[in-house]
Amino acid sequence: MPEHRFDVVGIGNAIVDVLSHADDAFLDRHRLAKGAMTLIDNARARALYRDMGPGVEMSGGSAANTIAGLASFGAACAFVGKVRDDQLGEVFAHDIRSLGVHFATPPASDGPGTARCLILVTPDAQRTMGTFLGACVELGPEDVTQELIGAARVTYLEGYLWDPPRAKDAFRRAIALAHDAGREVALTLSDAFCVGRWRAEFQALVAGEVDILFANEAELTSLYQVARFDDALQAVRGKCRLAALTRSEKGSVVLSGEEVHVIDRAPVAHVVDTTGAGDLYAAGFLYGYTRGRPLAECGRLGSLAAAEVISHLGARPEVPLDSLL
Amino acid sequence: MPEHRFDVVGIGNAIVDVLSHADDAFLDRHRLAKGAMTLIDNARARALYRDMGPGVEMSGGSAANTIAGLASFGAACAFVGKVRDDQLGEVFAHDIRSLGVHFATPPASDGPGTARCLILVTPDAQRTMGTFLGACVELGPEDVTQELIGAARVTYLEGYLWDPPRAKDAFRRAIALAHDAGREVALTLSDAFCVGRWRAEFQALVAGEVDILFANEAELTSLYQVARFDDALQAVRGKCRLAALTRSEKGSVVLSGEEVHVIDRAPVAHVVDTTGAGDLYAAGFLYGYTRGRPLAECGRLGSLAAAEVISHLGARPEVPLDSLL
Repeated sequence: MPEHRFDVVGIGNAIVDVLSHADDAFLDRHRLAKGAMTLIDNARARALYRDMGPGVEMSGGSAANTIAGLASFGAACAFVGKVRDDQLGEVFAHDIRSLGVHFATPPASDGPGTARCLILVTPDAQRTMGTFLGACVELGPEDVTQELIGAARVTYLEGYLWDPPRAKDAFRRAIALAHDAGREVALTLSDAFCVGRWRAEFQALVAGEVDILFANEAELTSLYQVARFDDALQAVRGKCRLAALTRSEKGSVVLSGEEVHVIDRAPVAHVVDTTGAGDLYAAGFLYGYTRGRPLAECGRLGSLAAAEVISHLGARPEVPLDSLL
Repeated sequence: MPEHRFDVVGIGNAIVDVLSHADDAFLDRHRLAKGAMTLIDNARARALYRDMGPGVEMSGGSAANTIAGLASFGAACAFVGKVRDDQLGEVFAHDIRSLGVHFATPPASDGPGTARCLILVTPDAQRTMGTFLGACVELGPEDVTQELIGAARVTYLEGYLWDPPRAKDAFRRAIALAHDAGREVALTLSDAFCVGRWRAEFQALVAGEVDILFANEAELTSLYQVARFDDALQAVRGKCRLAALTRSEKGSVVLSGEEVHVIDRAPVAHVVDTTGAGDLYAAGFLYGYTRGRPLAECGRLGSLAAAEVISHLGARPEVPLDSLL
């Protein structure tokens, strides 16, 4: 295999998060499913924002958070995602580039603004999200090049990309290019409702195209429409080469052929906001993986990064993750 | 005196903060005076932002932070300040309105964008600021109405308003309207360098126009060009009816005629970021003051609010301040 320039290239929705505190009654009033991601149009985003309390804006996006985490560990990374040429787009581009990530997707010069995810953090530290996809709908296969995908050891894709229609084509093209180049493809299932929207296609992807699968318990049981984690685990075994399955406070399970590792979560003094927990688990895992570490150690690195991100508000690390090693 | 609709109306620069971590060497490279506010033009703001690490965006502005704090305590407040009709302007307007603050200054529809303050927090929790005033230069006397100023018991002004030229006219008009209506005027000196730029005018204001003065030690010693806090204290005694002088970890001193109170700071487990400490002290003080509390209690309320805001990143309270009472 040729030398690689990047450890991981991530492709995902390029989003700025707006984080605020709310209670369960607020979620009910706005018909938001607690703990999930609901797609909302611009009008609904405006109504929700108007009713929300004061916010904090931070770059987000699932795969982008993972790439930010990988860069924070010291990995060489690139990101593909579509912002608009507006102030929030500038924020997104600045934040990811300031971590040393290669980000060269041209911003859209017309159409809707940079995507926003309105995140309500409830007193139990759970996060509930309303996403206005904005400029993400402009991402297309033209934004995915052979040069970039071929330069990365792992291409990391988020399931959320199946929501904006042309991004799905970018996603499929990235898989084809990665495999043509002898590279690996990783997928995160993103969200249980997202899995519900695209179940058959995701099942086919997992069975046929994905080398490394990331999923949490709700996503995996939704994928196979089973009630128990263990049933989902049996269903996924052998379907893809490697699966890392996260279970919140119960830790994670890593599967590879006959190999099974049950990994504990890392200790956290006080869980403040679970936003980004899965994204940062994937960052830690892939950091270890691209350095050839044993799978159990990859899982522990995932737990470590997830523990950092849930100890404060926001989905990106507050301290350089290499300082935790 | 007629009934008042607002406890306090604040007038100040309407700014979105971009907070990031940096070390002292970074401040030196960018010629930023540690702990101070440096005015920067758009080109310098772009260069500084390009070199900064990932940021967190939050509404800021000195007087606006004070008004947000007052609203968080439960006071009835209004704010006057100029944003542009852009995404950051929308963030600023949303955040202050979501606290119940009356904010009706029309945004600028052309010219520079909403003001940004690039805030570098060093490992010692000190903050150093580079401010691009942007749309704040559009604030003028036409934005200050008799109806609004006459409706507030206290008009609170920030010294920073002397930097954008037309804002100074708005400032002077607000003082005249407040006194015509039999209302009180409060001023914060804002920053030692700002005092250096406008020393003679600030001395005249304090001696002739201001009812309630807020200043920290560096600002006050700069105002009277003396070396010691006590010398500055003797200089200001009797110049304005009431002065609340803050001294970081040494607490504050409240002066009113012959009355002098020496107030301790409130305990803080871990000082994370001093951004907003003075602004929130003023919020707590004015909350007590507009409720007719004894001056020592006003000072203690100031200490309480300042302690909350320095315990986390950002210049606005993270918890409702009335929950601390």
